[in-house]
Amino acid sequence: MTQGNHSRQGRLSLVGAGPGDPDLLTIKAVKAIEAAHSIVAPTGRAKGASSALEIIREAVDISGKEVIEVHFPMKKVHLSGEKDPSVLEGWNRAANEVLRRTDTGRDVVFPTLGDPSLYSTAYYLLATILEKKPGLETEVIPGISAMSTCSCTVQSPLALGDDLLCVIPATFDDSRIEGVLERFDSICLMKVHRCLPRITKLLEKNGLTDRSVLVERCGMKGQKIFHDLRDAAGRKIHYFSTVIVRKRGFKDITRDVS
Amino acid sequence: MTQGNHSRQGRLSLVGAGPGDPDLLTIKAVKAIEAAHSIVAPTGRAKGASSALEIIREAVDISGKEVIEVHFPMKKVHLSGEKDPSVLEGWNRAANEVLRRTDTGRDVVFPTLGDPSLYSTAYYLLATILEKKPGLETEVIPGISAMSTCSCTVQSPLALGDDLLCVIPATFDDSRIEGVLERFDSICLMKVHRCLPRITKLLEKNGLTDRSVLVERCGMKGQKIFHDLRDAAGRKIHYFSTVIVRKRGFKDITRDVS
Repeated sequence: MTQGNHSRQGRLSLVGAGPGDPDLLTIKAVKAIEAAHSIVAPTGRAKGASSALEIIREAVDISGKEVIEVHFPMKKVHLSGEKDPSVLEGWNRAANEVLRRTDTGRDVVFPTLGDPSLYSTAYYLLATILEKKPGLETEVIPGISAMSTCSCTVQSPLALGDDLLCVIPATFDDSRIEGVLERFDSICLMKVHRCLPRITKLLEKNGLTDRSVLVERCGMKGQKIFHDLRDAAGRKIHYFSTVIVRKRGFKDITRDVS
Repeated sequence: MTQGNHSRQGRLSLVGAGPGDPDLLTIKAVKAIEAAHSIVAPTGRAKGASSALEIIREAVDISGKEVIEVHFPMKKVHLSGEKDPSVLEGWNRAANEVLRRTDTGRDVVFPTLGDPSLYSTAYYLLATILEKKPGLETEVIPGISAMSTCSCTVQSPLALGDDLLCVIPATFDDSRIEGVLERFDSICLMKVHRCLPRITKLLEKNGLTDRSVLVERCGMKGQKIFHDLRDAAGRKIHYFSTVIVRKRGFKDITRDVS
Protein backbone atom coordinates (compact mmCIF):
# COMPACT_ATOMS: atom_id res chain seq x y z
CA MET A 1 0.00 0.00 0.00
CA THR A 2 2.36 2.72 -1.13
CA GLN A 3 0.08 4.65 -3.44
CA GLY A 4 -2.38 7.22 -2.14
CA ASN A 5 -5.60 8.27 -3.78
CA HIS A 6 -5.34 11.85 -5.08
CA SER A 7 -9.07 12.40 -5.29
CA ARG A 8 -9.47 12.23 -1.51
CA GLN A 9 -7.74 13.70 1.51
CA GLY A 10 -5.63 11.34 3.58
CA ARG A 11 -6.16 10.78 7.28
CA LEU A 12 -3.80 11.30 10.20
CA SER A 13 -3.73 8.76 13.04
CA LEU A 14 -1.84 9.59 16.21
CA VAL A 15 -1.05 6.17 17.62
CA GLY A 16 0.01 5.29 21.17
CA ALA A 17 2.93 2.88 20.80
CA GLY A 18 2.99 1.89 24.48
CA PRO A 19 6.02 1.88 26.78
CA GLY A 20 8.45 -0.25 24.77
CA ASP A 21 7.36 -3.89 24.67
CA PRO A 22 5.90 -4.34 21.15
CA ASP A 23 3.33 -6.77 22.61
CA LEU A 24 1.86 -3.82 24.50
CA LEU A 25 0.59 -2.30 21.26
CA THR A 26 -3.17 -2.58 20.86
CA ILE A 27 -4.78 -4.47 17.99
CA LYS A 28 -6.23 -1.13 16.87
CA ALA A 29 -2.77 0.42 16.67
CA VAL A 30 -1.48 -2.53 14.65
CA LYS A 31 -4.40 -2.22 12.20
CA ALA A 32 -3.87 1.55 11.78
CA ILE A 33 -0.16 1.04 11.09
CA GLU A 34 -0.87 -1.76 8.61
CA ALA A 35 -3.39 0.41 6.75
CA ALA A 36 -1.18 3.53 6.58
CA HIS A 37 0.80 4.62 3.52
CA SER A 38 3.32 6.67 5.47
CA ILE A 39 4.76 6.80 8.96
CA VAL A 40 6.00 10.11 10.30
CA ALA A 41 7.93 9.48 13.51
CA PRO A 42 9.47 11.79 16.07
CA THR A 43 13.13 11.58 17.09
CA GLY A 44 14.39 13.21 20.26
CA ARG A 45 17.87 13.78 18.91
CA ALA A 46 18.82 15.26 15.54
CA LYS A 47 20.53 12.04 14.46
CA GLY A 48 18.94 9.59 16.87
CA ALA A 49 16.42 6.88 16.02
CA SER A 50 12.78 7.24 16.99
CA SER A 51 11.88 5.06 20.00
CA ALA A 52 8.23 4.97 18.95
CA LEU A 53 9.23 3.86 15.45
CA GLU A 54 11.46 1.11 16.84
CA ILE A 55 8.57 -0.27 18.88
CA ILE A 56 6.11 -0.43 15.99
CA ARG A 57 8.78 -1.85 13.69
CA GLU A 58 9.06 -4.84 16.02
CA ALA A 59 5.29 -5.35 16.08
CA VAL A 60 4.38 -4.75 12.42
CA ASP A 61 6.15 -5.33 9.10
CA ILE A 62 6.48 -1.78 7.78
CA SER A 63 9.04 -2.58 5.08
CA GLY A 64 6.66 -1.54 2.27
CA LYS A 65 5.86 1.84 3.79
CA GLU A 66 7.37 5.28 3.48
CA VAL A 67 9.06 6.27 6.77
CA ILE A 68 9.97 9.86 7.62
CA GLU A 69 11.75 10.67 10.88
CA VAL A 70 11.39 14.24 12.11
CA HIS A 71 13.51 15.79 14.82
CA PHE A 72 11.50 17.08 17.81
CA PRO A 73 13.86 18.79 20.25
CA MET A 74 13.15 17.45 23.76
CA LYS A 75 12.80 20.63 25.72
CA LYS A 76 10.53 21.51 28.58
CA VAL A 77 7.36 23.19 27.30
CA HIS A 78 5.61 25.67 29.55
CA LEU A 79 2.09 25.77 28.21
CA SER A 80 1.37 29.35 29.12
CA GLY A 81 4.89 30.65 28.54
CA GLU A 82 6.90 31.36 25.43
CA LYS A 83 8.07 28.35 23.50
CA ASP A 84 11.60 27.67 22.34
CA PRO A 85 11.89 28.50 18.60
CA SER A 86 13.60 25.16 17.92
CA VAL A 87 10.60 23.37 19.47
CA LEU A 88 8.10 25.30 17.36
CA GLU A 89 10.21 24.64 14.30
CA GLY A 90 10.15 20.89 15.00
CA TRP A 91 6.34 20.86 15.27
CA ASN A 92 6.06 22.91 12.11
CA ARG A 93 8.39 20.68 10.15
CA ALA A 94 6.52 17.55 11.21
CA ALA A 95 3.15 19.18 10.44
CA ASN A 96 4.32 20.03 6.92
CA GLU A 97 5.61 16.50 6.34
CA VAL A 98 2.21 15.11 7.37
CA LEU A 99 0.16 17.57 5.31
CA ARG A 100 2.26 17.07 2.19
CA ARG A 101 1.11 13.43 2.33
CA THR A 102 -2.51 13.75 3.44
CA ASP A 103 -2.99 16.38 0.69
CA THR A 104 -2.24 13.69 -1.88
CA GLY A 105 -4.56 11.14 -0.33
CA ARG A 106 -2.02 9.25 1.72
CA ASP A 107 -2.92 8.00 5.20
CA VAL A 108 -0.31 8.87 7.80
CA VAL A 109 0.45 7.31 11.18
CA PHE A 110 2.34 9.31 13.79
CA PRO A 111 3.44 6.90 16.55
CA THR A 112 4.06 8.28 20.00
CA LEU A 113 5.61 6.59 23.04
CA GLY A 114 3.24 5.45 25.75
CA ASP A 115 -0.23 6.98 25.68
CA PRO A 116 -1.07 10.13 23.67
CA SER A 117 -3.28 11.40 26.48
CA LEU A 118 -0.39 11.77 28.97
CA TYR A 119 2.31 14.35 28.21
CA SER A 120 2.68 13.37 24.57
CA THR A 121 4.30 15.43 21.82
CA ALA A 122 1.56 14.10 19.54
CA TYR A 123 -0.88 16.80 20.70
CA TYR A 124 1.53 19.62 19.90
CA LEU A 125 1.73 18.19 16.41
CA LEU A 126 -2.04 17.81 16.16
CA ALA A 127 -2.63 21.40 17.26
CA THR A 128 -0.05 22.69 14.79
CA ILE A 129 -1.61 20.70 11.96
CA LEU A 130 -5.18 21.77 12.76
CA GLU A 131 -4.10 25.43 12.69
CA LYS A 132 -2.95 24.87 9.11
CA LYS A 133 -5.76 22.55 8.03
CA PRO A 134 -8.77 22.62 10.35
CA GLY A 135 -10.77 20.13 8.30
CA LEU A 136 -8.24 17.28 8.25
CA GLU A 137 -9.60 13.88 9.25
CA THR A 138 -7.77 12.82 12.39
CA GLU A 139 -7.99 10.10 15.01
CA VAL A 140 -6.12 9.41 18.25
CA ILE A 141 -5.56 5.81 19.32
CA PRO A 142 -4.85 5.34 23.04
CA GLY A 143 -1.75 3.48 24.18
CA ILE A 144 -0.51 1.80 27.32
CA SER A 145 1.06 4.48 29.50
CA ALA A 146 4.38 4.22 31.31
CA MET A 147 2.70 4.81 34.67
CA SER A 148 0.23 1.99 34.13
CA THR A 149 3.00 -0.36 33.01
CA CYS A 150 5.08 0.51 36.07
CA SER A 151 2.11 -0.17 38.33
CA CYS A 152 1.38 -3.53 36.67
CA THR A 153 5.05 -4.50 36.72
CA VAL A 154 5.29 -4.09 40.49
CA GLN A 155 1.76 -5.57 40.84
CA SER A 156 0.48 -2.70 42.94
CA PRO A 157 -2.37 -0.41 41.83
CA LEU A 158 -2.01 3.29 41.08
CA ALA A 159 -5.42 3.88 42.64
CA LEU A 160 -8.02 1.69 44.33
CA GLY A 161 -11.31 2.21 46.15
CA ASP A 162 -11.48 5.81 47.34
CA ASP A 163 -7.84 6.63 46.53
CA LEU A 164 -7.05 10.08 45.19
CA LEU A 165 -4.36 9.96 42.48
CA CYS A 166 -2.13 12.79 41.38
CA VAL A 167 0.11 12.73 38.32
CA ILE A 168 2.83 15.37 38.48
CA PRO A 169 6.03 16.07 36.55
CA ALA A 170 8.92 15.61 39.02
CA THR A 171 10.43 18.84 37.71
CA PHE A 172 7.99 20.89 39.81
CA ASP A 173 9.47 22.75 42.78
CA ASP A 174 9.82 21.17 46.23
CA SER A 175 6.91 22.93 47.91
CA ARG A 176 4.48 21.95 45.15
CA ILE A 177 5.60 18.33 45.26
CA GLU A 178 5.46 18.24 49.07
CA GLY A 179 1.92 19.63 49.01
CA VAL A 180 0.92 16.80 46.70
CA LEU A 181 2.75 14.18 48.79
CA GLU A 182 0.82 15.38 51.84
CA ARG A 183 -2.64 15.49 50.34
CA PHE A 184 -2.78 12.49 48.02
CA ASP A 185 -3.04 8.74 48.55
CA SER A 186 -1.19 7.91 45.35
CA ILE A 187 1.29 10.01 43.45
CA CYS A 188 2.84 9.27 40.11
CA LEU A 189 5.99 11.29 39.44
CA MET A 190 6.81 11.54 35.75
CA LYS A 191 10.12 12.57 34.17
CA VAL A 192 12.24 11.85 37.25
CA HIS A 193 15.50 11.26 35.37
CA ARG A 194 16.84 14.77 35.92
CA CYS A 195 15.89 15.21 39.56
CA LEU A 196 16.08 11.84 41.26
CA PRO A 197 18.37 12.90 44.17
CA ARG A 198 15.96 15.74 45.01
CA ILE A 199 12.90 13.46 44.80
CA THR A 200 14.62 10.76 46.88
CA LYS A 201 15.30 13.36 49.61
CA LEU A 202 11.73 14.69 49.53
CA LEU A 203 10.27 11.20 49.89
CA GLU A 204 12.62 10.42 52.76
CA LYS A 205 11.76 13.69 54.51
CA ASN A 206 8.06 12.85 54.23
CA GLY A 207 8.47 9.28 55.47
CA LEU A 208 7.47 7.79 52.12
CA THR A 209 10.63 5.95 51.12
CA ASP A 210 9.16 2.52 51.84
CA ARG A 211 5.95 3.45 50.01
CA SER A 212 7.75 4.36 46.80
CA VAL A 213 9.11 2.48 43.86
CA LEU A 214 11.22 3.62 40.92
CA VAL A 215 10.91 1.79 37.62
CA GLU A 216 13.52 2.49 34.96
CA ARG A 217 12.93 1.53 31.31
CA CYS A 218 9.65 -0.13 32.28
CA GLY A 219 8.53 -2.78 29.83
CA MET A 220 11.73 -2.37 27.83
CA LYS A 221 14.99 -4.28 27.62
CA GLY A 222 17.13 -3.41 30.64
CA GLN A 223 14.15 -2.69 32.91
CA LYS A 224 15.19 -2.04 36.52
CA ILE A 225 12.99 -1.81 39.61
CA PHE A 226 14.22 0.02 42.71
CA HIS A 227 12.06 -0.74 45.74
CA ASP A 228 14.31 1.62 47.67
CA LEU A 229 15.08 4.78 45.69
CA ARG A 230 18.27 5.27 47.67
CA ASP A 231 19.71 2.27 45.84
CA ALA A 232 19.65 4.35 42.65
CA ALA A 233 21.80 7.10 44.20
CA GLY A 234 24.77 8.03 42.05
CA ARG A 235 23.45 6.16 38.99
CA LYS A 236 22.63 7.91 35.75
CA ILE A 237 18.91 7.24 35.44
CA HIS A 238 17.34 6.67 32.04
CA TYR A 239 14.87 9.15 30.54
CA PHE A 240 12.16 6.47 30.75
CA SER A 241 11.79 6.40 34.52
CA THR A 242 8.73 6.78 36.73
CA VAL A 243 8.28 6.88 40.49
CA ILE A 244 5.04 5.63 42.04
CA VAL A 245 4.19 6.52 45.63
CA ARG A 246 1.27 4.77 47.24
CA LYS A 247 0.61 5.40 50.91
CA ARG A 248 -1.54 2.34 51.27
CA GLY A 249 0.68 -0.46 50.05
CA PHE A 250 -1.55 -2.94 48.28
CA LYS A 251 -1.24 -5.63 50.93
CA ASP A 252 -3.26 -3.37 53.24
CA ILE A 253 -6.45 -4.09 51.37
CA THR A 254 -6.36 -7.70 52.52
CA ARG A 255 -6.60 -6.59 56.11
CA ASP A 256 -10.24 -7.58 56.51
CA VAL A 257 -10.10 -10.59 54.25
CA SER A 258 -9.74 -13.89 56.06
CA MET B 1 -5.23 -26.31 25.58
CA THR B 2 -7.70 -27.66 28.09
CA GLN B 3 -5.43 -29.93 30.12
CA GLY B 4 -3.23 -28.61 32.89
CA ASN B 5 0.00 -30.11 34.06
CA HIS B 6 -0.38 -31.51 37.57
CA SER B 7 3.34 -31.55 38.29
CA ARG B 8 3.56 -27.76 38.23
CA GLN B 9 1.61 -24.86 39.68
CA GLY B 10 -0.47 -22.85 37.27
CA ARG B 11 -0.08 -19.14 36.81
CA LEU B 12 -2.61 -16.32 37.28
CA SER B 13 -2.68 -13.44 34.80
CA LEU B 14 -4.75 -10.38 35.62
CA VAL B 15 -5.46 -8.94 32.19
CA GLY B 16 -6.63 -5.41 31.34
CA ALA B 17 -9.43 -5.85 28.80
CA GLY B 18 -9.61 -2.16 27.89
CA PRO B 19 -12.74 0.00 27.78
CA GLY B 20 -14.97 -2.07 25.49
CA ASP B 21 -13.71 -2.03 21.90
CA PRO B 22 -12.07 -5.47 21.44
CA ASP B 23 -9.47 -3.84 19.17
CA LEU B 24 -8.22 -1.96 22.23
CA LEU B 25 -6.87 -5.17 23.74
CA THR B 26 -3.08 -5.40 23.63
CA ILE B 27 -1.25 -8.15 21.74
CA LYS B 28 0.10 -9.27 25.12
CA ALA B 29 -3.42 -9.66 26.51
CA VAL B 30 -4.49 -11.67 23.46
CA LYS B 31 -1.48 -13.99 23.85
CA ALA B 32 -2.16 -14.51 27.58
CA ILE B 33 -5.81 -15.36 26.89
CA GLU B 34 -4.87 -17.72 24.07
CA ALA B 35 -2.36 -19.52 26.31
CA ALA B 36 -4.69 -19.87 29.32
CA HIS B 37 -6.59 -23.03 30.26
CA SER B 38 -9.29 -21.25 32.24
CA ILE B 39 -10.88 -17.85 32.37
CA VAL B 40 -12.33 -16.64 35.66
CA ALA B 41 -14.37 -13.52 34.99
CA PRO B 42 -16.13 -11.05 37.30
CA THR B 43 -19.82 -10.20 36.93
CA GLY B 44 -21.30 -7.14 38.58
CA ARG B 45 -24.76 -8.66 38.93
CA ALA B 46 -25.62 -12.10 40.29
CA LYS B 47 -27.14 -13.17 36.98
CA GLY B 48 -25.53 -10.63 34.66
CA ALA B 49 -22.87 -11.30 32.05
CA SER B 50 -19.28 -10.19 32.60
CA SER B 51 -18.42 -7.11 30.53
CA ALA B 52 -14.73 -7.98 30.60
CA LEU B 53 -15.52 -11.49 29.37
CA GLU B 54 -17.67 -10.14 26.53
CA ILE B 55 -14.81 -7.95 25.34
CA ILE B 56 -12.23 -10.72 25.24
CA ARG B 57 -14.71 -13.10 23.64
CA GLU B 58 -14.96 -10.72 20.68
CA ALA B 59 -11.18 -10.48 20.36
CA VAL B 60 -10.13 -14.10 20.92
CA ASP B 61 -11.71 -17.48 20.19
CA ILE B 62 -12.15 -18.89 23.69
CA SER B 63 -14.55 -21.67 22.73
CA GLY B 64 -12.09 -24.39 23.81
CA LYS B 65 -11.51 -22.93 27.25
CA GLU B 66 -13.16 -23.39 30.61
CA VAL B 67 -15.05 -20.23 31.58
CA ILE B 68 -16.17 -19.48 35.14
CA GLU B 69 -18.13 -16.34 35.96
CA VAL B 70 -17.97 -15.18 39.57
CA HIS B 71 -20.28 -12.59 41.06
CA PHE B 72 -18.48 -9.55 42.52
CA PRO B 73 -21.04 -7.26 44.19
CA MET B 74 -20.44 -3.69 42.97
CA LYS B 75 -20.34 -1.81 46.22
CA LYS B 76 -18.25 1.12 47.24
CA VAL B 77 -15.11 -0.05 49.03
CA HIS B 78 -13.55 2.21 51.67
CA LEU B 79 -9.98 1.02 51.89
CA SER B 80 -9.49 1.89 55.52
CA GLY B 81 -13.04 1.13 56.65
CA GLU B 82 -14.93 -2.09 57.22
CA LYS B 83 -15.88 -3.99 54.07
CA ASP B 84 -19.31 -5.29 53.21
CA PRO B 85 -19.43 -9.07 53.92
CA SER B 86 -20.94 -9.75 50.49
CA VAL B 87 -17.96 -8.01 48.88
CA LEU B 88 -15.45 -10.03 50.89
CA GLU B 89 -17.37 -13.18 50.05
CA GLY B 90 -17.16 -12.38 46.32
CA TRP B 91 -13.39 -11.92 46.47
CA ASN B 92 -13.04 -15.13 48.46
CA ARG B 93 -15.16 -17.16 46.08
CA ALA B 94 -13.20 -15.92 43.06
CA ALA B 95 -9.90 -16.59 44.84
CA ASN B 96 -10.93 -20.17 45.55
CA GLU B 97 -12.03 -20.73 41.94
CA VAL B 98 -8.64 -19.51 40.74
CA LEU B 99 -6.60 -21.54 43.25
CA ARG B 100 -8.52 -24.73 42.57
CA ARG B 101 -7.22 -24.46 39.00
CA THR B 102 -3.67 -23.21 39.51
CA ASP B 103 -3.19 -25.98 42.11
CA THR B 104 -3.69 -28.52 39.34
CA GLY B 105 -1.33 -26.80 36.92
CA ARG B 106 -3.89 -24.82 34.96
CA ASP B 107 -3.09 -21.27 33.84
CA VAL B 108 -5.87 -18.83 34.65
CA VAL B 109 -6.71 -15.45 33.12
CA PHE B 110 -8.81 -12.97 35.10
CA PRO B 111 -9.92 -10.22 32.69
CA THR B 112 -10.76 -6.83 34.12
CA LEU B 113 -12.36 -3.83 32.43
CA GLY B 114 -10.06 -0.98 31.47
CA ASP B 115 -6.67 -0.93 33.14
CA PRO B 116 -5.90 -2.98 36.27
CA SER B 117 -3.87 -0.10 37.71
CA LEU B 118 -6.89 2.24 38.02
CA TYR B 119 -9.67 1.28 40.44
CA SER B 120 -9.81 -2.34 39.38
CA THR B 121 -11.39 -5.21 41.28
CA ALA B 122 -8.49 -7.32 40.04
CA TYR B 123 -6.25 -6.10 42.87
CA TYR B 124 -8.75 -7.10 45.54
CA LEU B 125 -8.71 -10.55 44.02
CA LEU B 126 -4.92 -10.62 43.82
CA ALA B 127 -4.54 -9.57 47.46
CA THR B 128 -7.06 -12.20 48.58
CA ILE B 129 -5.28 -14.90 46.61
CA LEU B 130 -1.81 -13.97 47.86
CA GLU B 131 -3.05 -14.17 51.44
CA LYS B 132 -4.01 -17.77 50.74
CA LYS B 133 -1.04 -18.69 48.56
CA PRO B 134 1.84 -16.22 48.81
CA GLY B 135 4.05 -18.12 46.37
CA LEU B 136 1.66 -18.23 43.41
CA GLU B 137 3.12 -17.09 40.09
CA THR B 138 1.19 -14.01 39.03
CA GLU B 139 1.43 -11.30 36.37
CA VAL B 140 -0.57 -8.16 35.69
CA ILE B 141 -1.00 -7.02 32.08
CA PRO B 142 -1.87 -3.33 31.65
CA GLY B 143 -4.93 -2.28 29.69
CA ILE B 144 -6.24 0.84 28.00
CA SER B 145 -8.03 2.88 30.66
CA ALA B 146 -11.41 4.54 30.29
CA MET B 147 -9.92 7.95 31.01
CA SER B 148 -7.30 7.59 28.33
CA THR B 149 -9.90 6.41 25.82
CA CYS B 150 -12.16 9.36 26.66
CA SER B 151 -9.28 11.75 26.15
CA CYS B 152 -8.32 10.20 22.80
CA THR B 153 -11.94 10.11 21.66
CA VAL B 154 -12.36 13.85 22.13
CA GLN B 155 -8.79 14.40 20.83
CA SER B 156 -7.75 16.48 23.80
CA PRO B 157 -4.95 15.45 26.20
CA LEU B 158 -5.44 14.59 29.85
CA ALA B 159 -2.14 16.28 30.64
CA LEU B 160 0.47 18.12 28.61
CA GLY B 161 3.67 20.09 29.32
CA ASP B 162 3.62 21.20 32.95
CA ASP B 163 -0.02 20.22 33.59
CA LEU B 164 -0.90 18.74 36.96
CA LEU B 165 -3.45 15.92 36.68
CA CYS B 166 -5.76 14.66 39.40
CA VAL B 167 -7.85 11.51 39.17
CA ILE B 168 -10.69 11.48 41.68
CA PRO B 169 -13.83 9.39 42.20
CA ALA B 170 -16.81 11.73 41.65
CA THR B 171 -18.40 10.28 44.77
CA PHE B 172 -16.15 12.44 46.99
CA ASP B 173 -17.85 15.30 48.84
CA ASP B 174 -18.29 18.75 47.32
CA SER B 175 -15.55 20.52 49.24
CA ARG B 176 -12.95 17.90 48.33
CA ILE B 177 -13.91 18.06 44.65
CA GLU B 178 -13.94 21.86 44.64
CA GLY B 179 -10.49 21.94 46.21
CA VAL B 180 -9.24 19.74 43.38
CA LEU B 181 -11.03 21.80 40.71
CA GLU B 182 -9.30 24.91 42.06
CA ARG B 183 -5.79 23.57 42.30
CA PHE B 184 -5.40 21.33 39.26
CA ASP B 185 -5.01 21.95 35.53
CA SER B 186 -6.66 18.70 34.56
CA ILE B 187 -9.15 16.63 36.50
CA CYS B 188 -10.52 13.25 35.62
CA LEU B 189 -13.73 12.40 37.49
CA MET B 190 -14.37 8.67 37.63
CA LYS B 191 -17.65 6.92 38.47
CA VAL B 192 -19.86 9.91 37.71
CA HIS B 193 -23.00 7.91 36.92
CA ARG B 194 -24.51 8.29 40.38
CA CYS B 195 -23.77 11.96 40.94
CA LEU B 196 -23.90 13.72 37.61
CA PRO B 197 -26.36 16.50 38.63
CA ARG B 198 -24.12 17.38 41.59
CA ILE B 199 -20.95 17.36 39.46
CA THR B 200 -22.64 19.43 36.73
CA LYS B 201 -23.55 22.06 39.35
CA LEU B 202 -20.05 22.10 40.83
CA LEU B 203 -18.46 22.61 37.43
CA GLU B 204 -20.91 25.41 36.60
CA LYS B 205 -20.28 27.09 39.96
CA ASN B 206 -16.53 27.01 39.27
CA GLY B 207 -16.84 28.33 35.71
CA LEU B 208 -15.62 25.07 34.19
CA THR B 209 -18.66 23.97 32.17
CA ASP B 210 -17.05 24.83 28.83
CA ARG B 211 -13.81 23.14 29.87
CA SER B 212 -15.51 19.82 30.65
CA VAL B 213 -16.63 16.86 28.64
CA LEU B 214 -18.67 13.81 29.61
CA VAL B 215 -18.11 10.58 27.73
CA GLU B 216 -20.63 7.80 28.25
CA ARG B 217 -19.82 4.20 27.22
CA CYS B 218 -16.51 5.36 25.74
CA GLY B 219 -15.18 3.03 23.07
CA MET B 220 -18.31 0.86 23.30
CA LYS B 221 -21.45 0.56 21.26
CA GLY B 222 -23.77 3.46 22.09
CA GLN B 223 -20.93 5.84 22.99
CA LYS B 224 -22.15 9.39 23.68
CA ILE B 225 -20.11 12.56 24.07
CA PHE B 226 -21.57 15.55 25.91
CA HIS B 227 -19.53 18.71 25.32
CA ASP B 228 -21.98 20.46 27.62
CA LEU B 229 -22.78 18.37 30.70
CA ARG B 230 -26.10 20.19 31.09
CA ASP B 231 -27.31 18.36 27.99
CA ALA B 232 -27.20 15.14 30.00
CA ALA B 233 -29.51 16.51 32.69
CA GLY B 234 -32.42 14.20 33.43
CA ARG B 235 -30.89 11.28 31.56
CA LYS B 236 -30.00 8.03 33.28
CA ILE B 237 -26.25 7.91 32.74
CA HIS B 238 -24.49 4.61 32.16
CA TYR B 239 -22.08 3.16 34.72
CA PHE B 240 -19.27 3.56 32.18
CA SER B 241 -19.06 7.34 32.23
CA THR B 242 -16.13 9.66 32.79
CA VAL B 243 -15.84 13.44 33.00
CA ILE B 244 -12.63 15.16 31.92
CA VAL B 245 -12.00 18.76 32.93
CA ARG B 246 -9.07 20.54 31.36
CA LYS B 247 -8.61 24.22 32.07
CA ARG B 248 -6.33 24.74 29.10
CA GLY B 249 -8.35 23.49 26.16
CA PHE B 250 -5.90 21.93 23.77
CA LYS B 251 -6.20 24.65 21.10
CA ASP B 252 -4.41 26.99 23.53
CA ILE B 253 -1.13 25.28 22.92
CA THR B 254 -1.09 26.48 19.32
CA ARG B 255 -1.06 30.09 20.48
CA ASP B 256 2.59 30.63 19.67
CA VAL B 257 2.67 28.46 16.59
CA SER B 258 2.50 30.38 13.33
